[in-house]
Order: sequence, then C-alpha cells, then structure tokens
Amino acid sequence: MEVNNDLNREIPILDWESHLAERTKGMGSSVIRELLKFTQDPDIISFAGGLPAPELFPTREVEEACIYVAREQGRKALQYGATEGYLPLKEYLAASIHKYGIPAIPENVLLTNGSQQALDLIGKIFIDPGRYVLTGRPTYLGAIQAWRAYQAKFHTMRLDEQGMVVDEIERAYHKVLEDSGKPPAFIYVLPNFHNPAGTTLSLERRIKLAEVATKLDLAVIEDDPYGQLRFEGEYVTPICSLIPERTIYLGTFSKTMAPGLRLGWIVCSEALMKRFIQAKQGCDLHTGTFVQYVANDICKRGILKPHINKIREVYKERRDTMVDALTEFWPEECEWTLPEGGLFLWARVPESIDTNVFLQETALKEKVAYVPGVHFYPNADGGHHAMRLNFSYSQPEVIVEGIKRLGMALKKELAGK
Amino acid sequence: MEVNNDLNREIPILDWESHLAERTKGMGSSVIRELLKFTQDPDIISFAGGLPAPELFPTREVEEACIYVAREQGRKALQYGATEGYLPLKEYLAASIHKYGIPAIPENVLLTNGSQQALDLIGKIFIDPGRYVLTGRPTYLGAIQAWRAYQAKFHTMRLDEQGMVVDEIERAYHKVLEDSGKPPAFIYVLPNFHNPAGTTLSLERRIKLAEVATKLDLAVIEDDPYGQLRFEGEYVTPICSLIPERTIYLGTFSKTMAPGLRLGWIVCSEALMKRFIQAKQGCDLHTGTFVQYVANDICKRGILKPHINKIREVYKERRDTMVDALTEFWPEECEWTLPEGGLFLWARVPESIDTNVFLQETALKEKVAYVPGVHFYPNADGGHHAMRLNFSYSQPEVIVEGIKRLGMALKKELAGK
Repeated sequence: MEVNNDLNREIPILDWESHLAERTKGMGSSVIRELLKFTQDPDIISFAGGLPAPELFPTREVEEACIYVAREQGRKALQYGATEGYLPLKEYLAASIHKYGIPAIPENVLLTNGSQQALDLIGKIFIDPGRYVLTGRPTYLGAIQAWRAYQAKFHTMRLDEQGMVVDEIERAYHKVLEDSGKPPAFIYVLPNFHNPAGTTLSLERRIKLAEVATKLDLAVIEDDPYGQLRFEGEYVTPICSLIPERTIYLGTFSKTMAPGLRLGWIVCSEALMKRFIQAKQGCDLHTGTFVQYVANDICKRGILKPHINKIREVYKERRDTMVDALTEFWPEECEWTLPEGGLFLWARVPESIDTNVFLQETALKEKVAYVPGVHFYPNADGGHHAMRLNFSYSQPEVIVEGIKRLGMALKKELAGK
Repeated sequence: MEVNNDLNREIPILDWESHLAERTKGMGSSVIRELLKFTQDPDIISFAGGLPAPELFPTREVEEACIYVAREQGRKALQYGATEGYLPLKEYLAASIHKYGIPAIPENVLLTNGSQQALDLIGKIFIDPGRYVLTGRPTYLGAIQAWRAYQAKFHTMRLDEQGMVVDEIERAYHKVLEDSGKPPAFIYVLPNFHNPAGTTLSLERRIKLAEVATKLDLAVIEDDPYGQLRFEGEYVTPICSLIPERTIYLGTFSKTMAPGLRLGWIVCSEALMKRFIQAKQGCDLHTGTFVQYVANDICKRGILKPHINKIREVYKERRDTMVDALTEFWPEECEWTLPEGGLFLWARVPESIDTNVFLQETALKEKVAYVPGVHFYPNADGGHHAMRLNFSYSQPEVIVEGIKRLGMALKKELAGK
C-alpha cells in the first residue's frame, strides 16, 4: 500500500449498513429536521419548527455574562468539569424549583446537553430492546426518536382537552404486561402546554396519575420545557411534587434563555441520579462548562424572571393572533386547541384531508409549512387529519398571512372534494 | 392523595435498580472521575487527570470571540442549529485536515459534544450486545466506558514501543469470529501519543493495519485528540489518509483550545455520516450553537496555530521535567515510555508492586495521585504493575515534587519487600 495524499482521489464506497448494530436499522431521521430543509427557504412561512423567537434572545446579557466568565473564571470555565454539572448552577436550579413544591437539593440535579439528552439518557438506562413505554397519543417527537434508538415499543393513551386520559393507564399497563411479559419501562407525560397537543393536564388527573403510578410501581417522566411560559389560567402542581420518589422531572433553558446554549436538567432521587451520572460519563463526560458558567451568571443577575415575563407577553400575543386568524380564515369544519401557554397549538381538519399529503401537495406550494399530526403518533395510528402549528417563531403579520394561505387552500381542497 | 408542598418531607426511597435496563447493570463509574474527588484536595499532586494546563487557555480570545458572536450573530448563535454542525466551522475543519492528506469536504464532518460523544455515537450505531471491539491493551478508558454501556466485549492486542502490534489483528479477528459468530464491530486505534501508553504507531504499522483492515473488511476508529501536540520527531500519515473509505477519524478542540467548550468532531464517509446524524438527533439534537460560533471565530482569526505552538513548548518542557525527575528519583528497576507528544507517559514498576494497591495504601497518603494501569485493560488482564502519569497539568516544580515523592515511596516499598 502506498501513501496517497491526492485530495481529489475517488474514495471507494463501502457497504456500511452491513456493519451496523441491530438498533441502528430502526433509526430514522426526524421529520422536523427534514422539514427544516424546506423551511430554510426564506419565502416559506414555517409553523413547523419549535423555535423560540430569536429577537427575544438575551444577547446583551449573554455577552455580559461571557465577558465576566472569560475574565474572572476562565481557567475553570474552560476546563473539564464534573459530570453532575456546575455546583452553583445546580444550587440555583434546586432552589428555583422549590417554588413548585419540589424538595430538591443540588444532588438531585444533573445538567444535560438540552432536554433531548435527558430523553436519551432515560432511554439508555431504562429501555431494553422491545420494552414498552407508556405515553399519550399524540406525544413529543423527540422522545419517540430518542427511545426508538433503544428499540422501545410504545403503548399510547388517548388525549382530550384535559390532557392524557389517565383512566386508561391501568388497563394499558396490564395490556403491556400481557403482550411483552414485562411492565412498561415508565410513563412519559408532558403536563404543561403539551407538544404537540397544546393541552394541560388537570390537577385532578395529575393526582390520579400519581396514585396509579404508585399503585403500579411505575416511574414517571415529567417533561416540562414550557411550564414557565404560562400566559393565563391557574398554575398546576407538578407531578414531581406529588410523587418525587418516582418522578424524573426534566427542565430546560431552551425556551426561557436560548436553545443554542444546549442546557437542560434532570431532577430525580439521588439513588437514581447515580445511574444517570454513570450513563452521562460515557456519553460526553459532562455538559459544557463554559455555557453552564454563563447561564449561572445570567441566573444570578436576576434578569431571567423579567425576561420570561416578556417572552410570555409576546407569545400570548402571537397565540391570540394565530387563533384569531384561524377563526377568520379557516373552514368552519376545522377545530384547534387553545393552549394556555407554550409554543404550539394542534389543529384538526376534516377527515377528507390527509395533512401529510396536503403538506406535500398543497401547503409547501403555497409556501407554508407545518408538521403533519401522524408524526406525533409513535404507532402511526392517528393524527392523519391534524397538524401542529407553532406560534412562537413568526411575527404576527407573518402568522396571519400563513394561516390565511393555509385556510384558503383548505377551503379550495374541501370545495373540490 | 393530597398536594404536599412541604420541602422538608421525607421522600420514600424506591428500588430503582429493578426498573433499569439490562445494559445499565454493566455500567460503572469511571475510575478517573472517582479519582477526581481525591484530587480536588489542593494538597494532592495529581498526575491522574488528563487536564490541559489551564493557564494556557485562550481566555482573552474566547472573550473577544464571545463579544463578536453575541453582538453580530446572536440571533443565530443562540438558536437551534443543524444536527450536522455549523457549516463555516465544518468547512474550516474539512479544509484543515487536508494537510493530513484526508480528502474531506464539510459533508464528511459532524460536530460532537467533545470526542467522548463521538465514542458514544460509535457505540450506539455499531455495537450490539455481546459484540466484540478490537483494541490495544492498554487502551483509552473513556472508550471502554462508552462501549461497555452498549454491552460490548473487548478483544485486545499487545502494544509495544511502536504502538499496537498489528500483526496480531488477523488472528484476533478470527478468534472473535470463532467465539462470537460475528466479526468485530471495528478496530479502535489511538495512533499518536497513545492514551495511556504514550506510544505512536509507526508508518509501517499504519500501512499494515490499513491492508489488514481492507482484507478483513474491518472499520477503523482513529482517535486522534493529541495529533497536533507533537513536540519532536516526524509527522506520521494518519490511517484515515490511507483508507478514508473505512476510517472514522475523531478530532477535538479539547486539547488545543479548551475542553470546557465540549467540541469534538467525526470525519467519515457520507454514506455512514447519515447514520451518525440520525443517532446524534436522538441524543441531543445538535452540539451547542453558541460554542461552535465562538470556536469558528477563534479559528478564523488565525490564532489557533501560534497558540498550539505555545502549548507544544510548555508540554514538552513538562514532559522533559517529568522524565528527568523519573530518572533522578525512581528506582532503577522502573521504566517509562518517552512520548513524542501528547499529555501522558506510561511507567512500569517491578512486579512486586501492584499499582492499584500502592495508590490506595501509599501514594494517596503521600499526596500524589495517578491512574493505575489495570483500568486501561478492558479485560483487567494486565497493567497491574504500570501507571499512567499526566505531565500537562502540573507546573514543572510540582511535577518534580510529585515524582520525587512517588520515587521515594517506591524505593521504600521495594526495600521492604
């Protein structure tokens, strides 16, 4: 063999698929990531992503924090750090969730590379191939993707306007036990301003869920990326506060500070935390030290709370704009949820329209994008006539235009059928 | 059930172990991470970690880059980004490895959360439970930990002063095939300034390795965190340049810029890259946008090359200091490698001394830490009389003091036997 440094040489193509693990064959690309390619086109109005409004990013505060951290803490902030995360930030997070009635100490908190890494770590430590996960239908796409990589199966429960129908849990548990010989690995819940459904789980149902989980000895994943983005209505006690011993609570700075920092956190009992730390060590040693110092500095300056208030105001206005536009421009037969917070609403169209087909054949031609509902059904057994609409990213006038275009196209489609 | 917001309540302890996946049972905590607890003690001289010298971190450059990125690119740098990584940084990395004869384009590059995440992704897409990995003995601890989480088995080949004895590969391959009914998932190589052995794989052996890998249709993982930290001797062509079609090359900014940014990268063929991107999506969506913009800005300013030259100078001095101190203070029966670069050397003591026992019973009492050799042997079948010594972190006078203390203790131990 000769050393060949020709940069233009033809590189042989290998059959990599034959080298891969069994689990890899079940991995697919996220439809949202694929849709992002379309939505890079600046002419397209995208309701597809889950992007925060970039004009609200605290760029000045990040700049100030970076200057402070680089100057005053550079040698530590740029060094390797503890797998558990940066202690002052863990202290801040533990204290800040006390107001939710969650009795956390820093040892209950692990910093992750965004909430998505928390979902991956959960899959890694809980899911054997073929193991079932209980969740709602629809449910969060990122969780489906994370756990499918560990060859999870999904058993789903219906959602209505109060969130997951928790009366179905016990039956679902026994069905899973019967089908697979094992209880479900856990139940996954998005209690506040559900992605994609926009619904909030009522207190009554949370209490019921806590009781059933305790009875069945079931672990609960409480994924709460939007909890602080409530526009109106009553705050509802988190599940973690009801059953802290069996809840794994997930939080994130992605929606309140900035997603580009990739900072989320897990709150759970110390006994389980040991396992998360072991798994996290193997995954990436630790979450970025520098961004943890920066986030900590921003938190300590006390600017996060007024900043979140501003985000709430702007997103509420955009939700109202979208709902008003839906009312004005969409066919009467359509309906949608009215989320009390968060980033998304869920819209249903008549059964004669398949939202997947409609996206490809009509909406994208009209230069509007959304995520077809079926992608949020892990067993693809629903959502064919629904879509997720994001209202946080676009300016109000763009929201009106996009909803109008979709409405016109829907009306035309219905008239033609 | 009542809502109970008492923050001082007793939280029941759950039997979490019974809920976990099979793979989790095999996970352990990294010995290095555990050792870090001891080495937090400022009185302890630690040769145990793999920490870069923090006084060399480019704190001013990071500060300047942060200011630029926050001010000029804040809305994009703080937003969600592409799973593949930030295109300008990928372009820079692809171009920068051209000088090694690696014909990479941006599509061949994936940004990861440090090199450790690359190891995890490799485990995720390649390793079925019980699948064998070929590597040297000793080998990198982080790789063992990452792949053990996927229930890998390890078949190891001897290392000598020229690095892995590649003549053993073919026999190892057939042994694995015979034992497990499957070929090894891949062969893992640390070609430059091996961690922990300090050796560099000779060109002759690289060529031989490339030939054998091609003959056996074996994928090669070329982990190269230290390649740019060569103090002396001849640059050696990377394996990736010899067989780009079957090599997965891993690079990182952890040793040249700062580990706290958590930025590494994978270079591989486009056909395989698709799979890495899918796996990465499920793991954490993407690597931090902000730190990628910051690193890109630092790279574009052209300050990295002179900075690396400075690191080389300082580390060379520290290696020399350590080797001189070893020669002066250690018993004659001991020996060590003379690495031409990197962060570590590998020292052997007489067989009457078990380095694990010696650490716990003697060295830590003398306030010096190192990593016992056995931890780098995935099958624990060697390294009992060896240790890894890091020379990058401590100041020269501290290195002398630590090596002296160890040497005294070793002499005493040998005299007492």
